[in-house]
Amino acid sequence: MYVVVVYDVTEDDVRNKVADTLKAFGLARVQKSAFIGRLPPALVKELAERLKRVIKNANADIIILKIDKKTLDTMIRIGTTPPPRHDGPALH
Amino acid sequence: MYVVVVYDVTEDDVRNKVADTLKAFGLARVQKSAFIGRLPPALVKELAERLKRVIKNANADIIILKIDKKTLDTMIRIGTTPPPRHDGPALH
Repeated sequence: MYVVVVYDVTEDDVRNKVADTLKAFGLARVQKSAFIGRLPPALVKELAERLKRVIKNANADIIILKIDKKTLDTMIRIGTTPPPRHDGPALH
Repeated sequence: MYVVVVYDVTEDDVRNKVADTLKAFGLARVQKSAFIGRLPPALVKELAERLKRVIKNANADIIILKIDKKTLDTMIRIGTTPPPRHDGPALH
């Protein structure tokens, strides 16, 4: 299973902790506030629990989308920005 | 078909135009830089073309994920932020 995680976090330190958590789970940064990666279904729930603890009562919103490989492969990407520095293992 | 669109756009005016385009296609804002909505497959390509023209050579990255209803229904949402003001029609 693959996951796409996008977040909106007001406080810098909490936002950084969210990014660090996603990296720790092996996800790769694809935008400033978006990560994608492969994750065993059992770890998705653990990731969600971890993120809940990270944001606590901070002003934050996190979306986790569970997608299959086909959805990942048909992703459309538009843009001129070079991909952000590689923060995790390859997606495939 | 449903789409999730997330973007990273440096310039304010271009970023606002991206958001306006997504609203014009009937998508609903779910985060500062993320929209979700239902879109006929034929319109997905048109949206992508429109967004390409909007960003031109600006420093930007846009991801469009084509998902089915099941993926939308199993989306995990974590957070304390009240949903942003409703900018479009209901998702369902």
